[in-house]
Amino acid sequence: MVNISILQEGRALEVRAQGRRVRFHAIWLRDNAWDSETRAAGNGQKLIKLSDIPIDTVIAAACCEGKVLKLTFAPENKAVRYDVDWLLAHAYDHDRVQQKGWIDSRVEPWDRAGMPSPPVGSFAEVCASPQALHDWLADLARFGVAKLEQGPVADQALMQVVDLFGYVRETNYGRYFEVRSEVNPTSLAFTRQGLQAHTDNPYRDPVPTVQVLYCLENSVDGGDSLIVDGFRAAARLRDEAPGAFDLLSRYCARFEYRGAQGVILQARRPMIELQPDGSLIAVRFNNRSAAAFTDVPYADMEAYYAAYRRFGEIIDDPAMAVRFRLNPGECFVVDNTRVMHARTEFSGQGMRHFQGCYADRDSLLSRLATLRETLGE
Amino acid sequence: MVNISILQEGRALEVRAQGRRVRFHAIWLRDNAWDSETRAAGNGQKLIKLSDIPIDTVIAAACCEGKVLKLTFAPENKAVRYDVDWLLAHAYDHDRVQQKGWIDSRVEPWDRAGMPSPPVGSFAEVCASPQALHDWLADLARFGVAKLEQGPVADQALMQVVDLFGYVRETNYGRYFEVRSEVNPTSLAFTRQGLQAHTDNPYRDPVPTVQVLYCLENSVDGGDSLIVDGFRAAARLRDEAPGAFDLLSRYCARFEYRGAQGVILQARRPMIELQPDGSLIAVRFNNRSAAAFTDVPYADMEAYYAAYRRFGEIIDDPAMAVRFRLNPGECFVVDNTRVMHARTEFSGQGMRHFQGCYADRDSLLSRLATLRETLGE
Repeated sequence: MVNISILQEGRALEVRAQGRRVRFHAIWLRDNAWDSETRAAGNGQKLIKLSDIPIDTVIAAACCEGKVLKLTFAPENKAVRYDVDWLLAHAYDHDRVQQKGWIDSRVEPWDRAGMPSPPVGSFAEVCASPQALHDWLADLARFGVAKLEQGPVADQALMQVVDLFGYVRETNYGRYFEVRSEVNPTSLAFTRQGLQAHTDNPYRDPVPTVQVLYCLENSVDGGDSLIVDGFRAAARLRDEAPGAFDLLSRYCARFEYRGAQGVILQARRPMIELQPDGSLIAVRFNNRSAAAFTDVPYADMEAYYAAYRRFGEIIDDPAMAVRFRLNPGECFVVDNTRVMHARTEFSGQGMRHFQGCYADRDSLLSRLATLRETLGE
Repeated sequence: MVNISILQEGRALEVRAQGRRVRFHAIWLRDNAWDSETRAAGNGQKLIKLSDIPIDTVIAAACCEGKVLKLTFAPENKAVRYDVDWLLAHAYDHDRVQQKGWIDSRVEPWDRAGMPSPPVGSFAEVCASPQALHDWLADLARFGVAKLEQGPVADQALMQVVDLFGYVRETNYGRYFEVRSEVNPTSLAFTRQGLQAHTDNPYRDPVPTVQVLYCLENSVDGGDSLIVDGFRAAARLRDEAPGAFDLLSRYCARFEYRGAQGVILQARRPMIELQPDGSLIAVRFNNRSAAAFTDVPYADMEAYYAAYRRFGEIIDDPAMAVRFRLNPGECFVVDNTRVMHARTEFSGQGMRHFQGCYADRDSLLSRLATLRETLGE
């Protein structure tokens, strides 16, 4: 049963259905009409501009037949039909979470106790089965990380991984790059040193939102992989030291990379990035490429450094890190706006050879959404 | 003449030089040391973590010889030398602009009166001369748009344009895409309709930050190009209606694209994006891909729509638009986080055939910075 009432002389409509009571404004309803004059049939693109809708638009008449709401808008005298379920799914008349740093409910933060090992897929299965690919991408979207096992030990096999969900983000490092110890390294990544957990390329804007690291050889002593959930770390910081969280989200840090081939990449962005409504959307943390912070006022700089230190301590806390060893033919994919990765120092006679590349999350989420629709979830 | 004083029992240092008086904290100075144990000699990457620096770090001794500042830090008993000019250039002890929506001083907003036509470079010259390339990229960075003329009328010539400054951002539209009227268009871009000024792909996150549109044929009636500076439009909105500016920057809009090939791209981002310190960094405006806004509370939705309408009116104001006709072998490049583009409707017997592609601004700014250093500016 759906009940409706026109409010405020037609400027709004109240819909009562499924135990809910939600209001919609006439202008919102008119703008979100799905008739063929308002939206293109094939791709759903809007055919009109907001200025094509009269400023004094009101609902002149309303009736409901089953799940179909029929509205007539004045002064256009335009009749439009709405699916009540669609309206309820897009209702905006409700209270909102207000805690700074809130996390999208589709995302699940983790630490080592909550996720002792990363989600895993089989290379062959995700390539062959849409359901397996869906499940693996769903894990990757939810946890910000996922492994693939039993893949080919072959040059550029990581490109096949990217093909599963998107497109390579080419950079000055190439379409992909070799990660192995070099004699004259342009980056500490290409040494045998351990690396603190970090997000990649915070000196880039926009940062690459996805990274793939694919193992071709790993016969050294050490050289294990570690991952840390930056969203979990930020949430811990917020809970343990709200003032510190506030400082790292309120002020921009600076990041810089000067490469061997005349590359000067610089970015000015906060370590903890929130949407204007306070939702946590990105973490940037990379001790190697941190530049001089100059956007923090003198009065707050000591507290900012204390907050940065505290955030680093949380990130370095072994309770936060999930550790695993990548063997040849295995890779992991991370959401580089969220999950930090690290490696332990290595030594010995063996070789450690990874290939890495960047990609973007929008196509990954698109692939997941289309698989979900196709598989009828 | 440089004078220094140790403050707060070594927790800070005051530097007086060139008529300025700026303070630096001991922890900031220690973190920004440039000695070979702190930073890698070749690439400047930091070799230490913040946790490697003692929490009780203070300046135990300080002296200045000419432009070289020598500090000794306790408890490490570590001596570090600083270039006073570098310190002054990175000073953070000063008042900051506080007006919401402030714009980086390296960026110059424009309207039609201020910039009757876009900056132009010669295809051959920017390809041949580092100085010409520098000047063209500097214009592009400053105005968010630049044209190239007298280029080849050849398939994929736009790739040569991207090669000048960066890397293609491949998407579901391919490495590049054809813009011409089609029988079954997957986008209104591929019709003969006029298009309101817009930024591309706001349903993508991150959005492509650079777009190239290259003309191969334009013999139709109409089909002119228009560009509008979104930063100028946002600044006008802020000055004329601060409450409207606030609403569009405070709440997230939603954008969506469902393509023909099973693509479902969705983003939740504000139309006017500010850094946490209020600096304007991006505009998203695209009537065709605007989805139902659900992140604005009921109490603010009517005002939000009024703000959106006002922003659209400013964007549609002919005084804001720079109009030009792209001829075969000509292209324009826009900063897609800032400058909107549009086209007028076209008709007639002729053909209009553009090729478009996306790229990113970080590599463009990197190329500009390295050219600036090489050319000794």
